[in-house]
Amino acid sequence: PVARGGRRGHGHGRRGRGGGAGHSKHTPAVAVLLTCMACMQGLLTTASKVNGGYEYRFGVVVFLAEGLKLLIAAQLLRGARRRDPAGNPMTRDFKTMVMFPVPSVIYLVQNNIQFVFLTYVDPTSYQILGNLKIVTTGLFFFFFLKREMTRLKWIALLLLLVGATTSQLNTCGGKVLNAPAMGYAMGVASACLSAFAAVYTEYIMKRNNDCLHWQNAQLYFFGTVFNFLNLTAADLRQGFSDGFWLLDPFRGFSGVTWCVVANLALTGLVISWIMKNADSIVKVYATSLSMFLTMLVSVWLFEFQPNLQLVLGITTACSSLQLYYMRPSDMFGRDAADKH
Amino acid sequence: PVARGGRRGHGHGRRGRGGGAGHSKHTPAVAVLLTCMACMQGLLTTASKVNGGYEYRFGVVVFLAEGLKLLIAAQLLRGARRRDPAGNPMTRDFKTMVMFPVPSVIYLVQNNIQFVFLTYVDPTSYQILGNLKIVTTGLFFFFFLKREMTRLKWIALLLLLVGATTSQLNTCGGKVLNAPAMGYAMGVASACLSAFAAVYTEYIMKRNNDCLHWQNAQLYFFGTVFNFLNLTAADLRQGFSDGFWLLDPFRGFSGVTWCVVANLALTGLVISWIMKNADSIVKVYATSLSMFLTMLVSVWLFEFQPNLQLVLGITTACSSLQLYYMRPSDMFGRDAADKH
Repeated sequence: PVARGGRRGHGHGRRGRGGGAGHSKHTPAVAVLLTCMACMQGLLTTASKVNGGYEYRFGVVVFLAEGLKLLIAAQLLRGARRRDPAGNPMTRDFKTMVMFPVPSVIYLVQNNIQFVFLTYVDPTSYQILGNLKIVTTGLFFFFFLKREMTRLKWIALLLLLVGATTSQLNTCGGKVLNAPAMGYAMGVASACLSAFAAVYTEYIMKRNNDCLHWQNAQLYFFGTVFNFLNLTAADLRQGFSDGFWLLDPFRGFSGVTWCVVANLALTGLVISWIMKNADSIVKVYATSLSMFLTMLVSVWLFEFQPNLQLVLGITTACSSLQLYYMRPSDMFGRDAADKH
Repeated sequence: PVARGGRRGHGHGRRGRGGGAGHSKHTPAVAVLLTCMACMQGLLTTASKVNGGYEYRFGVVVFLAEGLKLLIAAQLLRGARRRDPAGNPMTRDFKTMVMFPVPSVIYLVQNNIQFVFLTYVDPTSYQILGNLKIVTTGLFFFFFLKREMTRLKWIALLLLLVGATTSQLNTCGGKVLNAPAMGYAMGVASACLSAFAAVYTEYIMKRNNDCLHWQNAQLYFFGTVFNFLNLTAADLRQGFSDGFWLLDPFRGFSGVTWCVVANLALTGLVISWIMKNADSIVKVYATSLSMFLTMLVSVWLFEFQPNLQLVLGITTACSSLQLYYMRPSDMFGRDAADKH
């Protein structure tokens, strides 16, 4: 049902095709911003640990970030509508609005199956299988959004997967990826779910020229509601043995925890912008490269000794990025240019 | 002094440029043959060990292989000249013939510095640094032979280096690539020497349209002489404490050792054909991919458990091969084809 291109009012050039020169002119800068923020996310989350564990509930952090995004989106929407109501349309029919809770539902399912997944595979394999979403996003991008993917772009995505996996290699402690078949099946299912969530979000953001803030407001409204319900359901299942989260929501919070909330919210807003003005593949690259940036910063902060896997992984990932967004002039020589 | 293209009489299409569709039409088959023979070389050499060591002198094997190649080249040359003397020219001026001992001298220097090199680095680092010749060959191919290299081809070569290194990763036993600066310098020097030997051989094979067998005969004549001298010099340095090799040349030889000799000789002839009719990069790909083939066969023969590094390395190397020889139609979509 998902049509190519979408019906957007303001054209930002061609998207997801040949040269990769499309998107908004701000895309590269926003992609770098997302890379840095996703990196910050990892570092802040680690910094928020006390004695190796979290003293706060991570679900509360996610709920607060969703709420914060909702507030920001509502504010921005109000401002935009006041300035230019016609330029910032808001589609309010049921058929459109019913699409917005879907990503929240998928993320909720995703969160819950992760615990089961981890009973089948070890944490390193879990992390490595998580990279599969790079390729599943490409597949869904191609099959559902009907974007053109060249052989060069497929190879680039495959290499991003290889690079991410290489940097996570630890050939020491026992055999990696030695999980039962069910573990692999769950890995693939999980990669498909997160790819579907990304590609579906891109689809709903682009299918009409609604104001981004209005689309965000809907997205985050459902995000807030579902996270509220999820936290409450978890407390109910435990018979409130650990208390009711709403009575003491900020238990264990520190200044760093609030930074995690703020960073998570802003990262979400940046991703929304990318889904509207660029595409899911830009998000895949930004979040994958942020993993390398996090590793590099960790090496710099904690170890000072980068390992060879990291160097190889980064080289492969940067090559992949170059290949995916390569222009024809980078590929052919003088004499070839005349012939083709 | 090395000019582009050379003055070859029989054109085999464009070489080393854009699409990679140049070379002889037999190039892909011969490249596969070389890959298999180089793989056999590794397996036979391992099989020729007795109790983990060699009972024969490897220098004698190389000498015999050079001699065998000289005999074969001389036979083929005689046949070719008898059938068609004009179609198989033999340049006999000093200026040309003086070029043929150079590769033998380089290989001799290379062999001798390897022992010193290994005193600076551990064997794994030695193997990993050896992969640098992939990139140095590309550099010499570009700067000395003036062949056109696109950004895509540079990335492909870099990825071949990364893939080869990934498959050799062993993150367990201590830190890899933790050598002193002198070790790295020797690694780079060694990679430059072997790249220079390859590119120089390609240059002398292609600079005129001499019969391949005549060029081989000169190359292997000097190879035989230099290896003879090298073996004798080694015995002299040791004061014949281990006897004189010529008095009992086949000491420790088994049937497998003779297979090593034969395979080494045939591999050399195939490489000569590639240098004349294809190029140094084809050789680089064939020999690098043979390393993976050897590892795969070893996994199959001895372990049955392929490791993740090998899978990642092979994926990267195969991607690299695809990228290097990619055609324009693989890179652009429908709409891009009109624009560029």
